[in-house]
Parts: sequence; C-alpha cells; structure tokens
Amino acid sequence: MAMPDSVVASLIPAAAIIGILFAIVLWKRVSAIQLTGGRLISSQNGREYLLEEQQGGGEEEVVAKAADIQKSISEGASSFLATEYYYLGIFMVIMAVVISSLLSIVTPEGDRTRKDEIRNGIFSTVAFLLGGATSILSGYLGMQIATYANARTAVEARKGIAPAFMCAFRSGAVMGFLLSGFGLLNLFLAITIFAKFYGDDWRGLFEAITGYGLGGSSIALFGRVGGGIYTKAADVGADLVGKVEKDIPEDDPRNPAVIADNVGDNVGDIAGMGADLFGSFAESTCAALVISAVSSLGESHDYAGMMFPLLVSATGIIVCLFTTFIATDLYPAKVISEIEHTLKMQLIISTLLMTPVALGVAVWALPSTFEMSVPSSSPDKAFDTKTVKNWYMFVCISAGLWGGLLVGLQTEYFTSNRYKPVQDVADACRTGPATDIIFGLALGYKSCIIPTIVIGVAIYVGNTLAGMYGIACCALGMLSTLATGLAIDAYGPISDNAGGIAEMAGMGEDIRERTDALDAAGNTTAAIGKGFAIGSAALVSLALFGAYVTRARITMIHSSILDPRVFAGLLLGAMLPYWFSAMTMKSVGKAALAMVHEVRRQFNTIAGLMEGTTRPDYKKCVAISTQAAISEMIAPGALVMLTPVIVGALFGTQCLAGVLAGSLVSGVQLAVSMSNTGGAWDNAKKYIEAGATEHARDLGGKGSDCHKAAVIGDTVGDPLKDTSGPSLNILIKLMAVESLVFAPFFYNCAHGQGLIFDFFGWTQ
Amino acid sequence: MAMPDSVVASLIPAAAIIGILFAIVLWKRVSAIQLTGGRLISSQNGREYLLEEQQGGGEEEVVAKAADIQKSISEGASSFLATEYYYLGIFMVIMAVVISSLLSIVTPEGDRTRKDEIRNGIFSTVAFLLGGATSILSGYLGMQIATYANARTAVEARKGIAPAFMCAFRSGAVMGFLLSGFGLLNLFLAITIFAKFYGDDWRGLFEAITGYGLGGSSIALFGRVGGGIYTKAADVGADLVGKVEKDIPEDDPRNPAVIADNVGDNVGDIAGMGADLFGSFAESTCAALVISAVSSLGESHDYAGMMFPLLVSATGIIVCLFTTFIATDLYPAKVISEIEHTLKMQLIISTLLMTPVALGVAVWALPSTFEMSVPSSSPDKAFDTKTVKNWYMFVCISAGLWGGLLVGLQTEYFTSNRYKPVQDVADACRTGPATDIIFGLALGYKSCIIPTIVIGVAIYVGNTLAGMYGIACCALGMLSTLATGLAIDAYGPISDNAGGIAEMAGMGEDIRERTDALDAAGNTTAAIGKGFAIGSAALVSLALFGAYVTRARITMIHSSILDPRVFAGLLLGAMLPYWFSAMTMKSVGKAALAMVHEVRRQFNTIAGLMEGTTRPDYKKCVAISTQAAISEMIAPGALVMLTPVIVGALFGTQCLAGVLAGSLVSGVQLAVSMSNTGGAWDNAKKYIEAGATEHARDLGGKGSDCHKAAVIGDTVGDPLKDTSGPSLNILIKLMAVESLVFAPFFYNCAHGQGLIFDFFGWTQ
Repeated sequence: MAMPDSVVASLIPAAAIIGILFAIVLWKRVSAIQLTGGRLISSQNGREYLLEEQQGGGEEEVVAKAADIQKSISEGASSFLATEYYYLGIFMVIMAVVISSLLSIVTPEGDRTRKDEIRNGIFSTVAFLLGGATSILSGYLGMQIATYANARTAVEARKGIAPAFMCAFRSGAVMGFLLSGFGLLNLFLAITIFAKFYGDDWRGLFEAITGYGLGGSSIALFGRVGGGIYTKAADVGADLVGKVEKDIPEDDPRNPAVIADNVGDNVGDIAGMGADLFGSFAESTCAALVISAVSSLGESHDYAGMMFPLLVSATGIIVCLFTTFIATDLYPAKVISEIEHTLKMQLIISTLLMTPVALGVAVWALPSTFEMSVPSSSPDKAFDTKTVKNWYMFVCISAGLWGGLLVGLQTEYFTSNRYKPVQDVADACRTGPATDIIFGLALGYKSCIIPTIVIGVAIYVGNTLAGMYGIACCALGMLSTLATGLAIDAYGPISDNAGGIAEMAGMGEDIRERTDALDAAGNTTAAIGKGFAIGSAALVSLALFGAYVTRARITMIHSSILDPRVFAGLLLGAMLPYWFSAMTMKSVGKAALAMVHEVRRQFNTIAGLMEGTTRPDYKKCVAISTQAAISEMIAPGALVMLTPVIVGALFGTQCLAGVLAGSLVSGVQLAVSMSNTGGAWDNAKKYIEAGATEHARDLGGKGSDCHKAAVIGDTVGDPLKDTSGPSLNILIKLMAVESLVFAPFFYNCAHGQGLIFDFFGWTQ
Repeated sequence: MAMPDSVVASLIPAAAIIGILFAIVLWKRVSAIQLTGGRLISSQNGREYLLEEQQGGGEEEVVAKAADIQKSISEGASSFLATEYYYLGIFMVIMAVVISSLLSIVTPEGDRTRKDEIRNGIFSTVAFLLGGATSILSGYLGMQIATYANARTAVEARKGIAPAFMCAFRSGAVMGFLLSGFGLLNLFLAITIFAKFYGDDWRGLFEAITGYGLGGSSIALFGRVGGGIYTKAADVGADLVGKVEKDIPEDDPRNPAVIADNVGDNVGDIAGMGADLFGSFAESTCAALVISAVSSLGESHDYAGMMFPLLVSATGIIVCLFTTFIATDLYPAKVISEIEHTLKMQLIISTLLMTPVALGVAVWALPSTFEMSVPSSSPDKAFDTKTVKNWYMFVCISAGLWGGLLVGLQTEYFTSNRYKPVQDVADACRTGPATDIIFGLALGYKSCIIPTIVIGVAIYVGNTLAGMYGIACCALGMLSTLATGLAIDAYGPISDNAGGIAEMAGMGEDIRERTDALDAAGNTTAAIGKGFAIGSAALVSLALFGAYVTRARITMIHSSILDPRVFAGLLLGAMLPYWFSAMTMKSVGKAALAMVHEVRRQFNTIAGLMEGTTRPDYKKCVAISTQAAISEMIAPGALVMLTPVIVGALFGTQCLAGVLAGSLVSGVQLAVSMSNTGGAWDNAKKYIEAGATEHARDLGGKGSDCHKAAVIGDTVGDPLKDTSGPSLNILIKLMAVESLVFAPFFYNCAHGQGLIFDFFGWTQ
C-alpha cells in the first residue's frame, strides 16, 4: 500500500508550512504581552535609562526599563550577527569557488562525462549556498525571537510562574517550529527544483544535495564557535570581576560586561544552537537520501520510498505541534517545582506520540521489502544486497527516538540539582573549589557511559537491519521531534536573559527568584539539548561516514583497523577534538582575560560606578567580545575545514576514513563529558544559591565559602559547556559531510591513495 | 654474519647482571652518606621526635630528625605495600585459577591435542605468576631505595646542589638498573626453562610467555591505581587544609597528613611507576616474541633472530650505564639552573648512544632478510608474506627511540616553567583559579598533538616495514633506554620527599630552596616519564593488539570499521578511559574529603597543634589513605580486568578488537592531556613560589592571590597527573595483553562470534 506521489509531494510542504504558521501564531500570542512605558518611544538609545532610579519606579517605570534593556541586548546581538555573517559571507563565496572547482576538475570515469562532473560541481555549490543561507536565517530568526521574548518573560514573571513559563516556552517553540519548518521546506524545494535538471539520475541528484548539509554545518560551526567565544568571554569576564572580586550579584547593572553577557546568550546559545541542530537535521536527511539513492528505492524510482526521511521529519513537526499544545495550553507549569517536570514531559510525550506515527509512515511510504547495498564481508565482492522489510525502518526510527529520550533523561539525571550527582558536586564545595572541580570532572566522565552504550546499540541495530541507511534512520528518529527539542532548548537562554533583565530593571527579589527557577530548569534542558545534539551528531556522522565510504569506493578490507593508514588516521582523528578544544578554550580564556582587565579598569577609573550613580561603558565590553569572537573563530574553523581536504588529498581516502572514525569515537566522549560537567557545576551553584532543601541550606547559601567555590566551578564550566563541548559535535559532523561532498575529488587524487603516498610510490 | 647462539645466550644474562651489579655499586655510594645521630638507635618509633625542638638543634640534631622522619615514611610505605600485596596475592591466585582453567578447556583444533591446551594453560599461568612476582619485587625494591635515599638527599642538600642532586639521581638510577636488570633476567630465564618443556614448539612457548606481560601489567594496574589514590588523597587532603585554609607551608610537620603525603610519593610515584614501566617492557618484549614466533625466524629456529628483542634491551642497559656515568661523575648538575639540563641531556645522550648500538644488534643478530606474516589486503587469503631486511628493524628501533625523545622533549616544553606554556598558565592566575584551570586544561589538550603525530608516524613506519613486528620494535626502541628513563623518573619523588624531610626536620630556608629546585625539575622529569610511559604504552598495545588479532584469527575484512560490531566496539572502547577516570577521580575526591575532615578535626580538637607544641596523629591519616587506596582500587581494577573477558566471550572477538582499538586511541589523548595539565599546574605554582624572574615576581610570590589560585589548580591536577592519567596507559596495555592471553578461549566461544550473538543466532 504505497503512498501516492501526490500525497508525498503535498504532505511534506504542507507540514512544513503548518509548522511555520503555528510558529507565527505562537509569536502573535507572545507579542500580545505589552512592553509599553512612557519612555519607550523617546529612548532611541535605550541604554541611557538603565541605571536611573534603579531601586524606585512604579510598574510602568520597570516595564519601560526592561524594554530599554531588551533593546540594548537586541541591538548588540544584531550587530554581532551582522559582523559575523559578513565574514561568513566571504567564507561562503570562497568555499563555493573551492567546491565548484575541485568537483568540476574530477576526471570522469565509466559512463560519466565531463558535463556530469561540472553539473555535480555546480549543483553541490548551489546546495551548499542554500544550506548556508538557511542556517544563517535560522540563527538570525532564533536570535530575533529570543531577544523579543526575554523582556516579556521578565515582565510576565511579575504575574507568576505560569505566565512567565508560558511566554518563555512559547518563544522557544516559535524558534523550534520556524527552524524545522524552514529547514524541511527549503530542502524539499531544492530537491524538487534540482530534479528538473537531473531527470532520472537520482544518485547524482542526492549526491549534489549533500552540499546542503555541508553549507548548514559549516555555518553552524562558525556560529557555535564564534557565538560560544562571545558569550563565554563576556560571562567569564563578568563573573570573575563582578561575582568573585566585587561581590555584586549576577546581572547587576553596575557590571560593565553585563550587556555583553546577555547578548552572548542570544548569539551563542540561541543562534549557534539553532544552526547546529539545523545542520544535524540537514545532514541526517542528506545522508539517508544519498544512501537510499543507490538502493532499490532509488533504482526503481520509488518517490514515496525515497522521500521517507523527509516524511519522517514532516510528520514529526505535526507531532511536536500537538506536544507543544499540551505544555502551553493544557498543562503549563504553574509552580516552580513543576517547571522541570513539564519540560521533561514534552520530551516523553513527543516520543510517545511519534512512535506510532513512525510506524505508519514506514508502512505507508516504504514498499514492504526493498534492497539495500551494504559493504560485503565476503572477499569476492565489494557489496552485498540486504533485503530490508519496511517495518525494520520503524525499528530504526524508534531506536533513535527512544535512544534520544534515554540520553536526554540521563543527561537530566547528571545535570539537574534535584538528583544526587549534582548534589554531590555541591557537597564537594565544602572543601573548596578544587574538590568541586575534581568531582565535576568525574561526573562528566561518568556521564559518557549511558550515551555511548545507547549510541553503540543504535549503531548495531541500525546497521544490522539496513546497513548505513539504518543508522541514518536512527539519526532521523532522534531528530524527528526536533521542534520540541529546540523549543525546550531555546527556552533556557530566554529564561536566563529574562533573569538578567529582571535584575537590571530592578524588579525585586521575588521576581528574580522566579526567573532563577525558570533558568535553573533551563540549564538542565540546555544540557539535555546538548545530549540530543551530540547523540544525533554521532549517528549522523556515522551515516555520512558510510555514504563517504561508498562514494570513495572504500571496501571493508580497505577500512580494516589493521591497515596502518586507517589506524594512524584513527589515532590522529581521536586527537583532533583535543586540538580543537585547546584552541577554543584558550580563546575563551584570552578573551575573558581582556574582558576582566576592561571591567576592572572601569571599576577602578569610573567614579561612582560601584555606588550605582554612574553608568558603565557597556559598549566597550560588547566590542571586546565581538572582536574576540570574530578573530578567534578562524583558527579552529580552519582546523576543521582543512583537515579532511588535506588528509583526503595528500594521505588518501583510507587514512581519511580512519580520521573520521577516530574523531567520532573520541569527540563524542569529550563533548558529552564537557557539556555535562559544565551543566552540573552551573546547577550545583544554583543549588547552593536557591537553598531549596535542608541539605542545600546547610551549604551556606549565597556569599558563603561553598558558594564562592561553586562560582569558580561554574566559571570553569562555562567554556566547556557552551563553547568547546557543543562545537565538538559540529566538528565530527562537518568533517564527515565535507568528506562526503569531496569524496570524488579525493578519489581522483591518485585513486584515493593520496598525493604524498603516490609521489613516493607507497601505494598499495 | 649471524650472532652465534652462545654469544646470545651469554650476552643477555650478562648485561642483566651487569645492570644489577651497577645498581648495587650505586647503592653503596648512596649508602656512604651517613645518617647518624645519637638518637637514631634509640628511636624505634621515629615519629616521636618529629616535632621536638623544631627550630633549634645543631647539625647532629637535624640529621637525626631527618633519619627519624625517613623511618616513619619508610615504615608507612612498607606497611601499605604489605597490605596491598596481600590483596594482590589473593587476586593473583584467583587469576591463576581463571587463566589455567579457561585456557585448558579450549577445544583443541587442527593438530593440537588436549595436552597442548593444558600445557598452554599451565605455562601461561606460571608466566603470569612470574611476571606478577617480578612486578611486585620491582615496586618493593624501588620503594626501599627511594625511602632510603630521600633523607640522604635532604642531608646532602646542606652541602650544596651537586651532592644532593647526585644522591637523588644515583638512587633513581639504582631503581632503573635493578628493574631493567631483573625484568630482563627473569624473562630470559623463563624462556630458557620453558624451552625445555616446549622443545621445537616456539610458537606455543612464546604464546605462553605472554602471561609474563599479563602478570606484570595487572600488578602494575593495581599498583598505579592504589598508589595513586593513596598519594593523592593524602596530598589533596594535606593541601586543602594546610595550604589553603591554615596558610601553613607544604610539608609542615604540624599538618597531620604530611607523613601520609610523603609515604604516598613512594608508593604511588615510585612503586606504581616502576611496576608500570616494567609492565611495558615485559609486554613489548612478549609482543615482539609472539609475533616473530610465526615469522620465518621462528620457523627456521633462528635463536639469535628470535632473541633480538631481548638483545635490544640487554644492550640498552649497557648504553644507559655509560649515560648514567656522565651525569653522576663527569658532568653532574652543580647549580640550580643546570638540573633540568642535566636530566634532559641524559635522555639525549642515551638516545644518541643507543642508535648505533641498535644498528649493530640488528645487523649482527638478524639474518639479512627474513619473512614476516602480515594480514593480507588481498581478498583471496588471510595472510601475506612480507620480506624484511635486517636494517628495517634498525629503522623501527630508531623510530621508537627518537620518537620517545621527541615526546619527552615536547612534554618538557609543556610542563617546565622555563617555557611559555606554563608561564601563560601562571599568568592566568592573575584573574583567579578559574582562568588558571581553563588555561591548564587547554594546555593539556594542546599537548596531545605532537605525541599523537609521533606515535602515528611510528605506527605507519613500523607497520609498513615489518607489520606488527615493526610496531613492537618501535615500542622496544622507545623502551630500550628504560634504565635512564626510570632513573630520571624516580629522581622526582625522591627530591620531593627530600624537600618534605628538609622542611619537617627544620633545615632552614636555603636548604629548602635547593630541594625545591631539585623537586621542580623532578616534576618536569616525572611528566617526561609519563610521556614515555604513554607513548610506549600506545605502541605496545598496538603490537599486542596485532598479536591478538592473529591469535583470534581475525582477518582484515573482519576488522573493518564498517562492521557494526567493530564500530560499536570502537565507540565503547573510547568510552572506557572516561569511565575508568571517573572512578579513580571520584575515589581520590572521596578519600581526600575524608582526609580533609580528619585533618580539620585534628586542628580543631588537638590543642597546641597550630602552635607546634603538640604532635598531630599522623597514623590516623596514614590509615585513611591506606583504607581508601585498598577499597577504591577494586572497582576500576575490575572494570579493566573484566571488560576484555566479558566482551570477548559474550560479544565476540571482532567487537573486542574494536574495544581495544577504541580505548587505545581515546585513552592516549586523555592520558597525555591529564598528565601534562597536572604537571603544568604544579610547575605554574612552583614558578610563582620561586619567583626566579621579573615576570614571576610580578605575580606576587607565596601567599599572594595568584599563588592561592595556583594552589587550587595544583590540587585539581593532583589526581589527573598522578592517579587517573598514568593509570590509563596501563588500562590500554592490560586490556590488550589480557585479550592476547585469552584469545584461544574467546575463539572457542562460538568461533569468536560471542556467546550472546551465537545464542540469538546473529552470527555472520
């Protein structure tokens, strides 16, 4: 009972458009919250009013102040993104030239002609540009929504937890649905339009489409790295002088780095993360498409079967739509203790709902059996044909879906201060920052166990059932509830910013407590989001790796770990995440040092700053962060972008296969441990601050020695969890997708033996 | 021009005995330093005198005090080792039963009979027990020498840098030569005796001999982990209360944990490290032997050729003997600035001298060409025959030798405070502990780059020239100057202890400055030693892995990273070092917390402790460390010992191959980054304390805020550099050698498919 082509061709764009429309409806509801104050209209330079009458002011005064601050943040974020995207624009033009030329000069083999190669070069480039542009758009929209929502959340917090939660969550959902809608729609349109030029050559079509993934991920890399450096330079700098030296609270308007810190949340956590997950979505879809193009689905031109990955994403949007409705309208969080529960339920409900839907899609869209080409373990031939039943793919999707949930829940266990691990870390603060850090690092290392086993099982199941296509479908399953994942992920920085605005606008202790509670849950959901991002990145990378291997004509025997090229590659690949992290951590450290010196300088030279009678020079700090982010993102970006090209061209496709596998297995561990360690330190600090239980109060609360130790841990964790850790999953995905796109070129370099080995005659 | 058998059979034991005799001569020279004081004879319980007349006392008084303290340390160390070895004895008996039974029940295949399997089981067990016993002996002797030398070094420091340096260095050399001599001699004797029972079956003989490596490494694991937890629990506990809270200097006799801390240096850094490097030596030799047994060398019963690995080690001892002579008699360090240089020159000179010797041995012992069996990349057969020229092996040995030197020198660059990286970390202390830690972590990550590339190149060169035999010879080359490596490595803790004794015996500021300078150089050499240990461990593991693969009958096609079992194994293997580190770090953290509470309790409840009028209860702290070390070493030890058995038996040999490769490539990075990060933090602290340059003095010296931040970094680094990091290289070696020993048993479990997969019928 195959799905008719017309249904497929309408269902996918329809779901995407519904998602986008739903996002617009949610936005309408968020924008119904009024941010009016007499001053708003006249204050073109919003920051002028930040410190005036800090403690006083009626309702209107406070709202106007919040609106002003929001404006400053929004302007700072827009200006940074504009600068960043300017440089990324230049990068994309250069990359476009590189892609189109390297792919066009490939010597045609077999029945391929020069025209085929040039066509591949051109369309890969177009797909690359489209992916990059969509990624930029996603990041930009996300940032706009988040900065639009932060002040509104703060204002709503005056009414209670429920309205504030609803505002922050709805805004997160706007981002989730816009991103998944646009990502799906653009990809669908690209495929439809490319098909006009490719006709029956589906394999060529989908190989070119992988450029979409490359574009999405390379922008995501720079977004994550640049945004990550920006936000953490500001955050670390603000904390080190403000909280540690001057003993003023977080987000205190007297701190010169406070605006930069809040801008950072938006450009790093929102724009960067949006681009990252969009990249995962694009790549997992591309990986599935390019693998299935060489299956019997592609060969028999089974449109519905081929579009199965997009159908999964399309139905996922609808499922997430219902799920969101539950949190925003049926059962919103009303008291502090419900926040984390409500967010967690979103994950569970969307997973529950998606499971039968996935079964339906698999059974309806796919033929009851089809053939997949898999690398052969028999010595006689390179490929075997594996017969796949349609419900196998349901199993794969479910494995990814439930595996993702499991990773998410264990991440919550390791990073939420409602559970023992974080409480142990908080306890370790009794003996000072050193034990806090030792326990935190140990926690991060330990948190690798479950995700690795989950990913390992998913890989085994997926591969056993349907080869690399199965693994790609596991990744798709994990990302099928992307809209919900993004919503709860974006919720975090919005709440964080809302807290900052409440503090800066002088909203009072009780409001701040509410936003802090929203924020603490946000830290956990951010860690969960990172868990998803890493888990899906691992599966996506492996699927892309599988597609690369096929395209680079590497058989099983040539990818043996007994081959010295493969093993040396494995070792070097395992080192890359460390090299990359060294660069990004050092960058944050350097930028934070510059920020600290500037903040100290302002406190020392601007009279009346500490007393709150003079305004700090926020702009200077914003400029330092911007400068650092732009200049420091080049080196790590270059490392990731150049490694596959250099290794593939000079040392051959087998060595590159080793590098990809090595960076994958090592990067996953480092990324998981970094983001969970950082999340745990942050929440251990919040645990001590909030003092919600007897045990927590026993640690002394704000300003105690325990708290000071916890603040140091939190500061160390900042670059781990928001810069290096989350960038690592882009590293592994990006190297894989880049290798896939350039595979024909690498093969063209001495038949994949590598130019150096070929030069010395060390070929096999 | 083959070497006559008689020359081989006499040269190897002769070199070993010369090494041992040389060690005895050196010991005589160290023991010429008199530790006499009127009280020494009467003070059976040395600790009684520790605090009496702390500031006063003439020459004799101080020496007697030093002797007393030395006695306490020596007694504490002996008592801990006795406890530890008691439990290790039980472990060895259990393992002996496991090894002999699992190997004896293997179903004989081909022309093998039940008798062959039983013989293999028995002799593997005997070799295992012998290796374990040698390892225990090495650790115990090392500890005895070190505790014998520490007080003498302190006493000599009163005369100047040169005598103190000479005493510490000679004592280190005693350990280096004793260990390499005994290790070589025992192995040679074992081979000679086993040969009586095995006759012409060289392959069987050398397969059984691998038990020697397993015994050595499993004792080393527990030694490193137990000793590491002991030393760091005491160190962290002592620092957290003493230096951070009470503001008293390091090694102050008022600190109740001070004796435990000094005991720890001996049981962790000396006994643990000695066992570790002995294990590497044993395993690399076993790996080379077992591989060459299936080459044309083994088949043609070429005794000199087969003994090549032992000849390399034997000549290495002689080369190191000359090298030591240079440091102790020709050009000893006379001023502080020369210490590091002298130690570094030891490495360079031994490498220079060993290079031509290696060429001589390769040309003389090996036939001009011989054949190695290597996994075939052609689909028709499992093995190819590779023709190897004898000078190829010289290239492999040299690659290891010079690669090791390069790793050592780069480790020095990253951990010595004479270079920019550590100075940058010290600079980061200006902005507090958080930036100190961020910069330190980044430094550790960065320091992975060169070692990985060096190991990668060595693997490529070794494998290209002679398959896995080449890689084993790279490891042998790196370890050929083991005696020198061990000497400079053991020098560190001896100087560290000497400093502690000088402080506790009240020897005055200038003496303490000298011992501090000796110690700072010791930190760097310790890091260099760890670099060597990790580099050689990586090569050894890969060689063992190669031997395992052959013995488990895994061909290239079955070890492809495209195989889901292999890849899932790779991912799980990459996770193991994290799991293991989480356990060991948490153990140190927990034990340190217990120590902190005890030390605080003593400060709070023992009147006059802070004033130095009452003696703290040192024994209580020693007991806490002992207890923690013994009980906490079980879980990580079990993880490492059980993983290969469980994976190999239940999930099959291919999955285990993945696990081994994954833990190798991931563990190397984690181990290098951990030990260099820790070394850098320690020396950044020493840099601020010593204030040797304008820049260093600018940071404020002892007691400044910078210094406090640096102390926190140092404390975090303690478990990284002395517990988790150095244990990781044992993890990767041990899992590999265990897999090699049990390979026939794993293959016997459903023909290597694994019992679980076999049960469900998921075989291939």
